Formats: sequence, structure tokens, C-alpha cells
Amino acid sequence: MLKHSHPLIGVIGGVGPYAGLDFVRNIFNNTRALKDQEHLNTLLVSCPAIIPDRTKYLLDEEPVNPADGLFESAKILYAAGARHAAVVCNTAHSDRIFKPFCGMVADSLPGMVIINMLSSCADFIKEKHPEIRTLGLLATKGTYKSRVYKEYFKSVEGFTLLEPELPGQDRISDAIYSLDYGIKAHSDPVQAKACNILLYEGFRLLDRGAQGLILGCTELPLAVDPTDFSTPVFNPGLLAARELIRLTAPAALTGE
Amino acid sequence: MLKHSHPLIGVIGGVGPYAGLDFVRNIFNNTRALKDQEHLNTLLVSCPAIIPDRTKYLLDEEPVNPADGLFESAKILYAAGARHAAVVCNTAHSDRIFKPFCGMVADSLPGMVIINMLSSCADFIKEKHPEIRTLGLLATKGTYKSRVYKEYFKSVEGFTLLEPELPGQDRISDAIYSLDYGIKAHSDPVQAKACNILLYEGFRLLDRGAQGLILGCTELPLAVDPTDFSTPVFNPGLLAARELIRLTAPAALTGE
Repeated sequence: MLKHSHPLIGVIGGVGPYAGLDFVRNIFNNTRALKDQEHLNTLLVSCPAIIPDRTKYLLDEEPVNPADGLFESAKILYAAGARHAAVVCNTAHSDRIFKPFCGMVADSLPGMVIINMLSSCADFIKEKHPEIRTLGLLATKGTYKSRVYKEYFKSVEGFTLLEPELPGQDRISDAIYSLDYGIKAHSDPVQAKACNILLYEGFRLLDRGAQGLILGCTELPLAVDPTDFSTPVFNPGLLAARELIRLTAPAALTGE
Repeated sequence: MLKHSHPLIGVIGGVGPYAGLDFVRNIFNNTRALKDQEHLNTLLVSCPAIIPDRTKYLLDEEPVNPADGLFESAKILYAAGARHAAVVCNTAHSDRIFKPFCGMVADSLPGMVIINMLSSCADFIKEKHPEIRTLGLLATKGTYKSRVYKEYFKSVEGFTLLEPELPGQDRISDAIYSLDYGIKAHSDPVQAKACNILLYEGFRLLDRGAQGLILGCTELPLAVDPTDFSTPVFNPGLLAARELIRLTAPAALTGE
């Protein structure tokens, strides 16, 4: 286990792999650091082979709960000394995955704090944009179907949450999963077709009355440029990265 | 320790932090994978606070050998099950750092293979560009002063290795370290001034007869676009990432 002044920030990546890199980049980008040694200690575990697709599991197309693989990843972080971590997948925050995962962590890894990307995001919106009551959600089918954002943002926080109609959900799913042009298969660079679909579906949600958009899948920030929209675009991964810095090394957080 | 079919690839990052992300991205980009689960298992440890600046150590401006912090990082990878790893810093490959580091690994972490970015690079050039006998090196002052590339490419492999004159070495050092425009302080995005310096120094080496350029610092690929040059540009980090895939999961390596 690492012994030094700064704590070790854990990141459970691999869901998908590039989103894990994007998340750690968010930690680095939001740290006050002008030289290597001022950056925070991070450990990124990316073991995608042991974590089945979250959406497929929620759609009952995959029997194994991804929670088990997430827990294996958490154990690696814990053994190395990490006591704060995030899971870099929105879909994994649905109750059927996140609750058993957090249960295993609570039972076996004492003192380990797993932050929740959805509450990082809701807390930020309430504090910085109190005028926003209606949000549009761009996400995977698993996230829509699991109602994870609906439950949290609507039932717990009282927002109105707009989702695309089913054909729009299908298009977004293709923008993420298509082997021809989806972000998971083509991440570097992402394909214009994926970007265009997300732009179109984002504008449709704004037309229906959304005052802001949530990028509710960690692949989406790879393909969506927030400056394309005139309304705020919220990236739960970015906000969760900032929360991890705030919890472990608050003086290092930029822009506070 | 992780138990599953694919081995775990270890990456010692933090030197610098963004270069670590770039290295892992190279692993992902060079893996045959169209969905998350087909990507290889990787573990990126980035603990920059315990690893003093490599160049300062080689210039005798820093008393603590970075080898100690690299070894602490290697222990984390080893405990998690990684048996192959790379150190994502060219300067750290100088004998005064890499030798004691590899010695500690050999003594304490049985079965751990630390690959050498320089030999990954030299092997590639010999195989794919046998016509090249003269190479230009863009690197940190620590790397120039330590003669790590000279020793390996010249003494061991018989290449002629061209380095910039001292004023050029100073400019490259600023492109990497300047707090105003250097890559370490401004990585996302990198500043045009840093890019322009590297372009200029690269062309100067080609004018002097280099048949190819080596990006001998892991920050440089963040700022150099190889297509700006008409001669081959070699990225030891990319070639080392490919070697790690070849060693651990050869069937997954792209373009073979």
C-alpha cells in the first residue's frame, strides 16, 4: 500500500476503456498543478473483460451482473491504498448494478467511499444553476430502461427529466454502440455521424423545453462539444472527478 | 490479485501524468477491439508526488533518485497481478535511474518484466526501416545529458544519433517545462508555441541529415504531429505500448 502525503484516488474504468482515460484526464485538468509532482495520485483500473455490458444486463440480454467485475476492480484499488473511487459508467449506477456493488464494497472493503456520479451532477446543478427545473437526458437504452436518472433526478431531487422518444433512443444507442460509427468502436477519433446524432437529439430535447442537457453516458463527452449548445451541458463524469478531488485534496481543486 | 484469462498490463505513469494517459490510449488504440470486453486489462498507476523530476536528478539539481518512487509504483502493479510493465518516461531510462529501478524489481518482484522503451523503438526501426542509419533525437536536457539514447542507439545499435545544439536543447526544454507555454503545464490543449519549437528543431535535425526523428520524451507526442514531417517519426511510447500487447496478448495486436 502506498504511503505518502496525498491520498490515492481510485478510478474504476474499462466501462468503456476510453471513458476511463477521459475521467482521469478530468481529474488532471481540474487539479492545480504546474509540474508533475503537484498532480494527485491516481490509480486507474481497466479490466473490461470481467465486466459484462451494463445495458445488456439491464435489458436481460446478459445473465451476469456487472457488479461482480466492478467489485474485483474495487478490490485492486483498495489493496493499493485507495479509499475514494468512482465507477466511470452511468448505466452502472442503476440500482440493479450499483446497489449490489456498493453492498459488496461496504461488506468487504471497510472505509472505501464510492462516489455517485448522479448525485455529484445533481448537487452541482442545484448549486450553480438553481433556475433549472427541466433537464434533457442523453444516455444508453440501459440507463433509460433502468430509470436510474428518472429515479434520482425526478423522485429524489424533483427535477423534470425529459428523455428522447424511442426512435431517438435507438439513434443514440447506435451513436454509442454501432460497430460502423459508434463511439465504443471508434473513439479516437470519434465519427462525425455519432457526433451529429447526439447534436440532433440534444437540440430536440431543448426544443421540448429542457433548460440543460445531461451527458448521461461516459462515452458521450468524447463526441459532444458543449459549446455547440447555448444551454448548459452537464458532464457527470467531470463533476464526479471534481468531487473526488474535493474529497481527497480540496486545496488542489481548480476554480474554487 | 486479478484472476482471468487475459493478463494485466501495468503502466507506471505520473512521469508526466498526461503522458501516462497517452500511453494507455496507445494500448487501447493498438488493440483489436470493437466492444469494451475485447480490450485488454490495464492498470495505470500515477503517483507523481513520490517521483522527483528525472531531468533535475540527472543534472544534479535533485538529490532523491526517482527510481525509488518508480519502484513503489511497480509494487502496486505487481500486487494487483501485473507481470509486464513499462515506465512512461524516456529520461527515466538513463542508467542512473533505470538500472537501480530494474535492480529493485529483479530483487523483490519475481517474474516482473519491465520493458525498455528504447529497445522497443530500436527494434522497430531496424525491422521496418532498415535503410535508416542516422536519427535525430528530440528530448529533455536530462536525456541528452545522461546520454541514454546515445549509449543505446549509438553504442549498442550502431546508429548515428544527431542532437540539437545547446540553444536548441534549451528551446526544447522550454517547450516541455515552461510554466507559460510548456507541455507539462499546458497539456490540454498544448500551446502553439511549444508545437512550433518542436517543429523547428525537428526540421533542423532533418536538415543536418537525420533520416528519421525520435520523440524521446513522452510529452512530445502530445505536441508533435508526425504528418508534419516527410520522414518517419518514431514514438517510443507507442512502440513500447505495442510491445506490451505483443508480449501479453499477441492476437489482439492491430496491424500485425
